[in-house]
Amino acid sequence: MPTPLLALPPTIAWRGDEQGHLEVLDQTRLPHDRHVLRIDTVEQTIDAIVRLRVRGAPAIGVVAAYGLLLGVRALAPLPAAFADRTRDVAARLGAARPTAVNLQAALDRCLRAVLAEPKLQRLYREARAIHAEDIDSCQRIGQLGQVLVKPGAVVLTHCNTGRLATAGEGTALAVLFAAWRAGVRFRVLACETRPLLQGMRLTALELCAEGIPVEVIVDAAAAGLIARGQVQLVLLGADRIARNGDFANKVGTYGLALACAAHDVPFYVAAPASTFDLESASGDAIALEQRDATEVLTLAGQSLALRGLSARNPAFDITPGRLVRGFITDVGVLEPPFPPAIKTMLALGR
Amino acid sequence: MPTPLLALPPTIAWRGDEQGHLEVLDQTRLPHDRHVLRIDTVEQTIDAIVRLRVRGAPAIGVVAAYGLLLGVRALAPLPAAFADRTRDVAARLGAARPTAVNLQAALDRCLRAVLAEPKLQRLYREARAIHAEDIDSCQRIGQLGQVLVKPGAVVLTHCNTGRLATAGEGTALAVLFAAWRAGVRFRVLACETRPLLQGMRLTALELCAEGIPVEVIVDAAAAGLIARGQVQLVLLGADRIARNGDFANKVGTYGLALACAAHDVPFYVAAPASTFDLESASGDAIALEQRDATEVLTLAGQSLALRGLSARNPAFDITPGRLVRGFITDVGVLEPPFPPAIKTMLALGR
Repeated sequence: MPTPLLALPPTIAWRGDEQGHLEVLDQTRLPHDRHVLRIDTVEQTIDAIVRLRVRGAPAIGVVAAYGLLLGVRALAPLPAAFADRTRDVAARLGAARPTAVNLQAALDRCLRAVLAEPKLQRLYREARAIHAEDIDSCQRIGQLGQVLVKPGAVVLTHCNTGRLATAGEGTALAVLFAAWRAGVRFRVLACETRPLLQGMRLTALELCAEGIPVEVIVDAAAAGLIARGQVQLVLLGADRIARNGDFANKVGTYGLALACAAHDVPFYVAAPASTFDLESASGDAIALEQRDATEVLTLAGQSLALRGLSARNPAFDITPGRLVRGFITDVGVLEPPFPPAIKTMLALGR
Repeated sequence: MPTPLLALPPTIAWRGDEQGHLEVLDQTRLPHDRHVLRIDTVEQTIDAIVRLRVRGAPAIGVVAAYGLLLGVRALAPLPAAFADRTRDVAARLGAARPTAVNLQAALDRCLRAVLAEPKLQRLYREARAIHAEDIDSCQRIGQLGQVLVKPGAVVLTHCNTGRLATAGEGTALAVLFAAWRAGVRFRVLACETRPLLQGMRLTALELCAEGIPVEVIVDAAAAGLIARGQVQLVLLGADRIARNGDFANKVGTYGLALACAAHDVPFYVAAPASTFDLESASGDAIALEQRDATEVLTLAGQSLALRGLSARNPAFDITPGRLVRGFITDVGVLEPPFPPAIKTMLALGR
């Protein structure tokens, strides 16, 4: 196993007061380069989200809130139609990525704050609160979920759901960090997560830094390993959870859920309350982002394929709620089908 | 779609008589370079198989037969214990890759020939026969399977099962070539097939050369596309088929079978009779090759991951026979569970 690493720069940091700026760790350059990107404008914020320099549903929610502040601040002196202009900026940010609901939820929350009190200082306070609450949510998810990780288990995870996906310790990885620190000893299989290899580049980095033993596998190897009894728990994140428990997550999640169902392996999802979208009745209502073919056909600028070849690149898939053993949230472990009081239950955590 | 290509050099060619040499197209360098490798010794043969310069269950069977000839020829003048020495050379070749049964089947067949008539010329004739029969098997598989490809269908395939995997037109891809030439118009989704990208590099190349529309997807995207009704047929190859229909194939096959079963999409396997291993009662008896972690962690010599990271790299997985709608073979389309007369049925094709 690689030597434990020096601490990474923070995934997201706001420097200064409401006239300050945002810094994000450029995740496209990990694990080899640790480049901190300074962001001063809404355009730079959108660019960082679109290019996945910052990614992970909770993380892009926090960044979008700060991006809104940067965009609105540029309007100074604040126009009479402050709230309308804020709505325009929020719409541009909201279009950056369609699937993760946290992005839209953070923008909606900021908009409500500005409608109540149309002041830059109010918007700043809201962004800071979203940031602080995400850190807190991660900690609670870790505490609530750690009991699910048994000594000696092999835990399989997909994509990245750690410090690099949130403002705090993560969602699914926060559970693993909490269990490890509580003395539970286990091993992790990290799906590499094509096309952009968040599992191999980011999750493996975070687990190594914590001293947790990890092996990378190609995504397609997971089902066979699950079938041969080599996995005791699958634990991953979500980008949007519908009212019936169907959820969108990184492409490949549905296949893992099918394999777990076929071999009775517990399949858990970790996500903060902000990832629930109770407006969506089921997975059918969730828009799945299609990304550029280049992500599949090239790697680090190098062409892997025949020139001119086509690729289809859905970034997410939908997993039916009935395949989920439980959702580890900051307000408790929720099992689908959810009770009618789900909205109240989720709101308790906010 | 890329312009149709000039014809590739043959995957496998024997040049000259029994004193001749073998040529294989180096598949590790496709699609960018078309490098033909000259092979004069058994050591070079083993190296080409181990490094996947030639791969595909039927292709490595043919190459192993020629490799045996090269290894035995080097013993000249032929020793008294000719058959014993032939067995030694065959054992070395047989150890090159453990999962595809065609390799061992071709060596066993050559050994039987040498035992019956311990002459180099006899061994040469057997290798030529195995080569010719593979070309013929491919053609029959194509003819027998083409009816399964419906106009307008989207056919999903995995790894490479075409001209580059056989001495002829392929197995699963031969079915697609035959259907296309019969005027059926359809589209293909090619799983890229990590870690070595045989789908993106090889299958896409072959389909483009034939003018068949193809899009590449990451392996993990398949289940979601199948769930959304975007695939009408899954068609792929096999490396070893057990007596009960369980079969080994490129890692990722089992996950595709699970998704097809969940959404009632026809799942077919194309393979010659030589891929059946009736000595193995079920998939439990099949050894699955584990390959080097470097294949996962690097690409074209470039490190993708944190230095020192571990990876697990199973090259194959096992799919239960009950998930297979049918096996398209050179002796007909066989549906599991196979009848007791399966051995006789398979032998009819030889």
